[in-house]
Amino acid sequence: MKPRVAIVGVTGAVGQEFLRTLEQRRFPAASYKMLASARSKGKTLEFAGEQYTVETLTESSFGDVDIALFSAGGSSSKQFAPIAAEAGAVVVDNSSAFRMDDGVPLVVPEVNPGDLNNGSKIIANPNCSTIIMVVPVWPLHQANRVERMVISTYQAASGAGYQAMVELETQTADMLAGRPARPKVLPHQAAFNVFSHNSDVGENGYNTEEMKMVHETRKMFHDPDIRVTATCVRVPVMRAHCESINLTFSKPITEDEVREILASAPGVRIIDDRENSLFPMPIHAANGDDILVGRIRQDISQPDGRGIDLFVSGDQLRKGAALNAVQIAEQVVANNN
Amino acid sequence: MKPRVAIVGVTGAVGQEFLRTLEQRRFPAASYKMLASARSKGKTLEFAGEQYTVETLTESSFGDVDIALFSAGGSSSKQFAPIAAEAGAVVVDNSSAFRMDDGVPLVVPEVNPGDLNNGSKIIANPNCSTIIMVVPVWPLHQANRVERMVISTYQAASGAGYQAMVELETQTADMLAGRPARPKVLPHQAAFNVFSHNSDVGENGYNTEEMKMVHETRKMFHDPDIRVTATCVRVPVMRAHCESINLTFSKPITEDEVREILASAPGVRIIDDRENSLFPMPIHAANGDDILVGRIRQDISQPDGRGIDLFVSGDQLRKGAALNAVQIAEQVVANNN
Repeated sequence: MKPRVAIVGVTGAVGQEFLRTLEQRRFPAASYKMLASARSKGKTLEFAGEQYTVETLTESSFGDVDIALFSAGGSSSKQFAPIAAEAGAVVVDNSSAFRMDDGVPLVVPEVNPGDLNNGSKIIANPNCSTIIMVVPVWPLHQANRVERMVISTYQAASGAGYQAMVELETQTADMLAGRPARPKVLPHQAAFNVFSHNSDVGENGYNTEEMKMVHETRKMFHDPDIRVTATCVRVPVMRAHCESINLTFSKPITEDEVREILASAPGVRIIDDRENSLFPMPIHAANGDDILVGRIRQDISQPDGRGIDLFVSGDQLRKGAALNAVQIAEQVVANNN
Repeated sequence: MKPRVAIVGVTGAVGQEFLRTLEQRRFPAASYKMLASARSKGKTLEFAGEQYTVETLTESSFGDVDIALFSAGGSSSKQFAPIAAEAGAVVVDNSSAFRMDDGVPLVVPEVNPGDLNNGSKIIANPNCSTIIMVVPVWPLHQANRVERMVISTYQAASGAGYQAMVELETQTADMLAGRPARPKVLPHQAAFNVFSHNSDVGENGYNTEEMKMVHETRKMFHDPDIRVTATCVRVPVMRAHCESINLTFSKPITEDEVREILASAPGVRIIDDRENSLFPMPIHAANGDDILVGRIRQDISQPDGRGIDLFVSGDQLRKGAALNAVQIAEQVVANNN
């Protein structure tokens, strides 16, 4: 049975990426329903050669839906995901609303697909920075437990939505023309600047984005003791994140072992050409499915041989959001057939 | 006695910053000599209200020079710094040519001014990323020895010279106009991209920039055992670097202790406003003297209380190069008077 699919928040950056991803992967849907807030009502869009009209998201949107892909923000998810689930749909939610809820599976298919089998009708898609990190770290963690991670991110504008991408572009043009930067969507100048991730900073000094990387990793790895510190930072890049990752394993591990494990890891592509200084870059990760991994090296600051440094890049809209959600939906379809 | 000063490489990005810094600080010079390669011969420039003609750097340039500020690249320094020293000048060299030489002081005035007293006529100015890091870390290290540092950098185009800054600007304009990026000075697309620092990668997988941060820190701290790992990365920013710094101290330390030490540390300004998400940014560090420090927090991945995370930003051309060299020259003048 082919599922009837609804896309909630279809006009946003992730919503648009849902469409591209579903089409490219020839997702086996019986039908599509395009949903968004009242603002987008009546907009038309072309998808897989057909015209669709965007419908307004309401409580009665989900009567004829089997799978609902949500990316309309946390408050929309909180309000409408339970309604969709109640109406019989499986919800794959890209917001943070349900991620840490006990009964809700938080899934990266390369990491913990088995968590989909707990019967929950709501499935959470992890935070983009977390996804991009766990895809390469999980296979290493399975071979040799990771005890501690120190992560610094280089995050693209897309993580703050389509309007942030537009702002980066127009603001850059303004500055090149000698006009002042006028931040509206993002809290600080984005063009030719770097700033600490614009999520709320908590009591412990970490911002929400950083704490997501801590808590979501522990949940997906089923390892509440893994120690994680992250510093999340925005850079003037459109849609692919980078992360500098320093790992401490429980036992010594070599660069070659890491390389061998990553060479056969699903969703990972090694780009590590030292001679030509060619390593993961956003321009190569953008619009692609793989997490690019390079700068693989033994950490010289851990002389006991338990340290490894990595530099990774992944498309925030794709594997960091839409692709991972669609892969979850594919797994749901496979599990039901 | 006021010294006669030569500026070697005066037409470059750091050379130009030498001029701005000397003028702003009212450096007590008796005279200035503007030197550059034959390419710039005859160019005129205005400095402190006077016109100067750029002279070609030759072996006989230094007969009437007391202090020579070099920033003309490593090979020029290797060739001409010993000649200048032989002719009686004190050389402050911004290149990496002499930094690790045993008899050559490598100095950040806030860190190890005493190293200037060994009688060497050549004094090395450290690497920009190293300077920006040691200014805040040194006072902490004195209070509670730093055992290990994990650093990820966000480096501006200026570190690759004036032409790299021009390339970032023109390439960004090209891309906004729909034209392709054509990297010439930098090895990869700089606009809207992030890439691993373009210095040679050695046998151990670290690039030269990263190893400078390791070796130079050990030399300046007189601590050959301090463990450092760095990942050096370029971002599309003009002239100020950022660094995400994770520290492991030898004894437990609190966020408040760190804040108190840094509040009175020379060359440091704390910008750490959690409520308004205002932290160090290149746009605030650029053209300023201070290293901005923020995101000061206890590292939750080190439950023994020995970990601290910081995010810093400093002007690469200024404290990362010209200002530090001028401060060294000021110290040399003070020591001789």
